[in-house]
Amino acid sequence: MNAEIIAIGSELLTPTKTDTNSLWLTEKLNDIGIEVMLKTIVGDDGARLEETVRDALRRSDIVITTGGLGPTEDDITRKCTADAVGRELEFHNDIENHLRERFKAWGREMPEINKRQAFVIAGAEILPNPHGSAVGMLLDQGGKLLIVLPGPPRENKPMFTEHVLPRLQALAGETVVRRRLLRVSGLGESAVDEIAAPIYSSYGNVQTSILFNKSEVELHIAARANSEIAAQGTADEVADKLNAALGKAVFATNGETMEEVVGSLLRERGETLSTAESCTGGLIGYRLTEVPGSSAYFIEGAITYSNDAKIRELGVEPAIIEEHGAVSSECAEAMADGIRKRSGTDHAISVTGIAGPDGGSEDKPVGTVFIGYSGAKGTKSIRLVLPGDRYLIRWRTSQAALDYIRRQIMSR
Amino acid sequence: MNAEIIAIGSELLTPTKTDTNSLWLTEKLNDIGIEVMLKTIVGDDGARLEETVRDALRRSDIVITTGGLGPTEDDITRKCTADAVGRELEFHNDIENHLRERFKAWGREMPEINKRQAFVIAGAEILPNPHGSAVGMLLDQGGKLLIVLPGPPRENKPMFTEHVLPRLQALAGETVVRRRLLRVSGLGESAVDEIAAPIYSSYGNVQTSILFNKSEVELHIAARANSEIAAQGTADEVADKLNAALGKAVFATNGETMEEVVGSLLRERGETLSTAESCTGGLIGYRLTEVPGSSAYFIEGAITYSNDAKIRELGVEPAIIEEHGAVSSECAEAMADGIRKRSGTDHAISVTGIAGPDGGSEDKPVGTVFIGYSGAKGTKSIRLVLPGDRYLIRWRTSQAALDYIRRQIMSR
Repeated sequence: MNAEIIAIGSELLTPTKTDTNSLWLTEKLNDIGIEVMLKTIVGDDGARLEETVRDALRRSDIVITTGGLGPTEDDITRKCTADAVGRELEFHNDIENHLRERFKAWGREMPEINKRQAFVIAGAEILPNPHGSAVGMLLDQGGKLLIVLPGPPRENKPMFTEHVLPRLQALAGETVVRRRLLRVSGLGESAVDEIAAPIYSSYGNVQTSILFNKSEVELHIAARANSEIAAQGTADEVADKLNAALGKAVFATNGETMEEVVGSLLRERGETLSTAESCTGGLIGYRLTEVPGSSAYFIEGAITYSNDAKIRELGVEPAIIEEHGAVSSECAEAMADGIRKRSGTDHAISVTGIAGPDGGSEDKPVGTVFIGYSGAKGTKSIRLVLPGDRYLIRWRTSQAALDYIRRQIMSR
Repeated sequence: MNAEIIAIGSELLTPTKTDTNSLWLTEKLNDIGIEVMLKTIVGDDGARLEETVRDALRRSDIVITTGGLGPTEDDITRKCTADAVGRELEFHNDIENHLRERFKAWGREMPEINKRQAFVIAGAEILPNPHGSAVGMLLDQGGKLLIVLPGPPRENKPMFTEHVLPRLQALAGETVVRRRLLRVSGLGESAVDEIAAPIYSSYGNVQTSILFNKSEVELHIAARANSEIAAQGTADEVADKLNAALGKAVFATNGETMEEVVGSLLRERGETLSTAESCTGGLIGYRLTEVPGSSAYFIEGAITYSNDAKIRELGVEPAIIEEHGAVSSECAEAMADGIRKRSGTDHAISVTGIAGPDGGSEDKPVGTVFIGYSGAKGTKSIRLVLPGDRYLIRWRTSQAALDYIRRQIMSR
């Protein structure tokens, strides 16, 4: 079975807004084996909307619209979907009464304009909306399903989950999709694919997609079977094989973020971490503390952006900066030692580099970064030259630093 | 004149990826007075793509496709667009030769599969692609324009700007759109609209949209006129009036970020800043240093996540934490004083709060945040209770802290 999604609203045709409802809907549809074949984004334009709905119902088994169910004149979905299927709109007194009561409960009189929301396509099932004033609709039109949902995610998600999904599941039959997400650091997209392709391509019922996301490669595994257990079993089997083949480069086997993985490793071991950041300006600390409960292992960080601060706060010898520069392995190691000594943590990580756009030289071009580590077994550092603009260089530096600490903790 | 955009590629119909090319294209089209009426996202599905292109050319003046021009079998755009307009594909020896030379320059033999990229719709103008192997196409089909662009932004943006935009500009004629973006902090969406609506609604040729973005209200002003000077003049006039009416809540009048605004204020005055962060974990430092050249005014930051670190690094009296807790105005002020004293900066800002999901109490629920400021004129603090999840509370805290320092610098 296949589906089309139509997102309705002129604001979705501006340079600043895009339809995101369809991403969540696509995942839910894919999970029960329904593929999305086409998406349309249409404004408050009656003729185009009607044509779009009619074409979609001709081409696809299931058509889902989102948005355009508000009470104003711009909200044309009721009228245009009804016209597209050649049916009338019927007024429902019970919906009007229900709306009046809701408004009363909020201490307000219902504006007369909201009566528009009591119209429903003749023959359609009404999908209640406990989170807003627009009801949804579900219509079987000659074996094709037209599903009309409100636009706000907090309204359409529960409506879809409670009233639409079970219906589609029954129609779609036995097909079940289960997913796994592996994340890989330190290997490029094509290197990952070279290792992964011989494994995943031997499964006919598994769809694997490889995405590069700022600084990591994501392996999305979707296994299809006729039972939950079979689908999950296949997804797990593929994930395990890929994990074994890719080795330490796999940092997450269930979609965890790098900061969650580092946090789990520290928590398991009852160990602590501190950070000393120059070019990332606090990003590593920010990411580490994005994990709830990170206060159990993250003690403190120093953002030593100026050379003075590196000397004053971390005890970096001025001679190191004079001889090797602030962007050097010597400085990175002194920074890591300095913050570890000051905070008394088990591990410390530091970064110093040139994020650009200025400040690069022939020796140390923009993107040159040194990452330092200090721990019970000693102090070390690596040098990287990272591509991208300032934003990406800083993000990739934070990712490389977190990956470096991950590997240090695991190798102890 | 109006346009439709068709994004091509099965990956754009998955739960993890969405079409973003169209946002940039929409802005460029809007700027010359062309409205985007509909967007379609279609996979590697020949029949649907051909139908979509044909329908779009019937409905709209300009049809732009992105993607599907690669060398593999999945890349069906050439064939399907040609079929949609009832024309043949023609092989171009010069394109093949050019491709072979490019591959040679990279030290590689051109794979035979890439010959596919030398086919062009009969009668179409070839749009050169200096950044990739897929040429674009532009076809006048009975007064309608079909424009076929590659998918990667670094290929389609320069191609559009250099070869398509001047053409469309000539067609679109006199209409010019000029934009201004005001950003507002500390006022809600409806409060902004109440003040702004009487101003912008008195201009017939100005479109204003109000968006709420995590922690700020954005006022997008688009003025339309028949000359650049007139459009810019109207946009500036509306922006000036809105700025005057909204007062200090407007922190940016040309779309600058809060961190850029704070940076400019410090730079103008030749003053310096340090930060002491608890619940934001480094986010404020990260945002401040996202601005190139921020080392001129941002000296250092302390991420004092644990109470120990607050005492050890910032000299917060243990008694303050015992009596008032680490989340208190007293602690926030002591943190700001501590980092200012240590770093010797003109200004210092501090935050301490409860980002959740745990840690809240009746007295201090999740979202409770204290922001401290220390400067030549003294020390002060504010208490906020911010809504949202952990991510949003931390983002909003960083925004409120940057706004607080902005107001302090300006009021001196």
